[in-house]
Amino acid sequence: MMLAALRAEVLKANQEISQRGLAPHTFGNVSGVDRSGAEPLVVIKPSGVDYATMKAEDLVVTDLNGRVVEGTLRPSSDLDTHTLLYREFPQIGGVVHTHSEFATAWAQACRPIPCLGTTHADYFHGPVPVTEPLTQAEVEEAYVRNTGAVIARRFKQGGLDPVAVPGVLVAGHAPFAWGKSPMAAVEHADVLEYIARLAFKSVLLGAPESGLPAYVGRHHYLRKHGPKATYGQKQV
Amino acid sequence: MMLAALRAEVLKANQEISQRGLAPHTFGNVSGVDRSGAEPLVVIKPSGVDYATMKAEDLVVTDLNGRVVEGTLRPSSDLDTHTLLYREFPQIGGVVHTHSEFATAWAQACRPIPCLGTTHADYFHGPVPVTEPLTQAEVEEAYVRNTGAVIARRFKQGGLDPVAVPGVLVAGHAPFAWGKSPMAAVEHADVLEYIARLAFKSVLLGAPESGLPAYVGRHHYLRKHGPKATYGQKQV
Amino acid sequence: MMLAALRAEVLKANQEISQRGLAPHTFGNVSGVDRSGAEPLVVIKPSGVDYATMKAEDLVVTDLNGRVVEGTLRPSSDLDTHTLLYREFPQIGGVVHTHSEFATAWAQACRPIPCLGTTHADYFHGPVPVTEPLTQAEVEEAYVRNTGAVIARRFKQGGLDPVAVPGVLVAGHAPFAWGKSPMAAVEHADVLEYIARLAFKSVLLGAPESGLPAYVGRHHYLRKHGPKATYGQKQV
Amino acid sequence: MMLAALRAEVLKANQEISQRGLAPHTFGNVSGVDRSGAEPLVVIKPSGVDYATMKAEDLVVTDLNGRVVEGTLRPSSDLDTHTLLYREFPQIGGVVHTHSEFATAWAQACRPIPCLGTTHADYFHGPVPVTEPLTQAEVEEAYVRNTGAVIARRFKQGGLDPVAVPGVLVAGHAPFAWGKSPMAAVEHADVLEYIARLAFKSVLLGAPESGLPAYVGRHHYLRKHGPKATYGQKQV
Repeated sequence: MMLAALRAEVLKANQEISQRGLAPHTFGNVSGVDRSGAEPLVVIKPSGVDYATMKAEDLVVTDLNGRVVEGTLRPSSDLDTHTLLYREFPQIGGVVHTHSEFATAWAQACRPIPCLGTTHADYFHGPVPVTEPLTQAEVEEAYVRNTGAVIARRFKQGGLDPVAVPGVLVAGHAPFAWGKSPMAAVEHADVLEYIARLAFKSVLLGAPESGLPAYVGRHHYLRKHGPKATYGQKQV
Repeated sequence: MMLAALRAEVLKANQEISQRGLAPHTFGNVSGVDRSGAEPLVVIKPSGVDYATMKAEDLVVTDLNGRVVEGTLRPSSDLDTHTLLYREFPQIGGVVHTHSEFATAWAQACRPIPCLGTTHADYFHGPVPVTEPLTQAEVEEAYVRNTGAVIARRFKQGGLDPVAVPGVLVAGHAPFAWGKSPMAAVEHADVLEYIARLAFKSVLLGAPESGLPAYVGRHHYLRKHGPKATYGQKQV
Repeated sequence: MMLAALRAEVLKANQEISQRGLAPHTFGNVSGVDRSGAEPLVVIKPSGVDYATMKAEDLVVTDLNGRVVEGTLRPSSDLDTHTLLYREFPQIGGVVHTHSEFATAWAQACRPIPCLGTTHADYFHGPVPVTEPLTQAEVEEAYVRNTGAVIARRFKQGGLDPVAVPGVLVAGHAPFAWGKSPMAAVEHADVLEYIARLAFKSVLLGAPESGLPAYVGRHHYLRKHGPKATYGQKQV
Repeated sequence: MMLAALRAEVLKANQEISQRGLAPHTFGNVSGVDRSGAEPLVVIKPSGVDYATMKAEDLVVTDLNGRVVEGTLRPSSDLDTHTLLYREFPQIGGVVHTHSEFATAWAQACRPIPCLGTTHADYFHGPVPVTEPLTQAEVEEAYVRNTGAVIARRFKQGGLDPVAVPGVLVAGHAPFAWGKSPMAAVEHADVLEYIARLAFKSVLLGAPESGLPAYVGRHHYLRKHGPKATYGQKQV
């Protein structure tokens, strides 16, 4: 039952990244994980299938090591990045990979996105980090899995919390984003594109590299995420 | 009666900023003030409600100090900025806050928008000013109200007239615009985005920082706003 | 009879600049001239009327000195620029003024658009020129008419042919374009925006200021405009 | 029979470049070649005909030297570039010429597009090359044919394989792309615009001119094109 609901959400999330313009030329995929059973199960987009005609039964189900459990189509070629992130970041329930235009441009420039404004601060606590490039050995050994590994390493070395920093730029490649569910991950991928777009323009206008004072960033982040959140109609 | 009309206009104005693309990700809100009664009343967007489904009865009515008078939903989290602006600028009847892309990029660069052309001069007399950043004490004491306070201080220190300069960039945040009514404020927020967009490109092409000669700016401003206005079909 | 046809074309041309996105915020106007009678007659958009609801009978007819001959609405506030251009450039039959985004950005940067490619060369023989700023005396004496005067002066001093160079940037203001008819003028205004958009990007990528070799520019211009034109299905 | 199918595909491919926004102002054309007969036949867009109303019977059929075999309309003025490419690159079955915005901006800057990311590497093995400018003698002798000649020379001198590098920028002009069929060529023209768009932004953000490490580029190219391709649902 939970898996059926997850399939439906992963299908919708894949369609959303296409409709929101985040996956030009079908460069993009979304997965979700169901951690309720004895063995966590990952639901992911099949490789090379069109977003518009994709159906819930086309999605592929694997275990956390990428072994196919259900589905007749080949899973997304990025599967091993997704599963590594689920293994390393147990807090997350959905992963999105896009080639959205401005976030990808920052990734290609191998440059983290500085926190220049409150929009950024509402969603990402600090800069959006960029990974190191993969070494030649990493590319040759297991390119896709090691794409996940350089992300995890970047978070470990930087002492970053994947809940407070729900996305990353893979150097010379493109962004990954995540969240507590596939749709939350889509929301983060979409906001990441928006702040990449804003920061591109601000940097060309000479924005201070130091960015927003830390006390403003902290205030904004906490008003949406902390125990004293004041945003929206939800009781706190 | 007047309040009902104001509710309808504030509803429409909130929908307009969404439809005109000025409020990506629902980052934006509009309010209006009815100053006809003994106590001025502010009508404002509720927090976190979708523009498309919002109804006039969802809007929240407060006094000039932000105490809720009518409405069951929580008001926009930016309420205290709006009410401060109504207290400080008695000439204005509507306030718009957006995160429109180019105006926000200038705000994030902490850089005023120089008056580089006649489009700008028709609507804003002089550069679009940018505030100082809030101090840590201001953030911690009352972040939202003090966002209004740094705007008011910027106008006072610069000797600026909020009628001649109907908008501002809050450093590291985004623009606020205003006008004699909520829809006039929307018009100013929309033109502000347009001139931010033009000036971004002109500055990258090496536009002179000095901008338009003052006598051209004055001429344009006065042909739309002075007693000798020559624009449109209205009798003067 | 000819005037009725001209009214219809001027109406359509005004709607076109709006539909093609060249006249954001209704900043723009088109006129045409009928030179078949004893006295040439100019048909122009009325001031401040919405493109969508404008009707042929709303258009204003004036003589070449801007005296209204037919129509109850006030003519476009830019009328005196149009009529001066018709007096100075007897070859032209239509004039378009827009605030299209990229052309206006170049105008605000007071910078001519260098001829960097064959698209440019197909329509404009040499750079798109930029005027001098109006002097304070010119602004105070007759701002709108003198906007036309600085255009005419720029062409006279530069030895430019308004048929080979069917548009100009007014410094600190926006573009004007023209052609043998109102719709031809719209086409030139549209292409001008396109080449302004291309050149903006090329210049940021470090395009050589010298631009296209003169022999390439000449070849392209002549293949569309000279007696040996090879483009399209028309017999030559 | 094959020619009828090719006509249909060339028609569709011409409509696609218009619908995908790659051919602003109808600057663009697609052709295909049928190499199955004794004499290869080229099907190409007629000159100056609107994409929306074009019909299969409007297309022009020529031999590899551009002599018209079928059709009453004049062929695209770029025909001689297409036929030269078919003669020089026997592996290709379709050619697309566009003036798509970002690729044209790079062409106008006379600058190759460095390989900055994996999106680029999936489609183009190495930078997108830019030709030399045509000499005055080449322009005067046979401008259109020599546009093809400078492309072929660029590939010969650079030791480039037109299958691994399915497109080029003609200096001061615009891109050409090709593929095994007209629709494959359209796909390459579309991806070329996308990577030009990404690289424009990355370069402004300071992307390293050296680009992606060669071992990453090679890996990406081979995963889509080599005998061990892992992308999509196709059996390998």
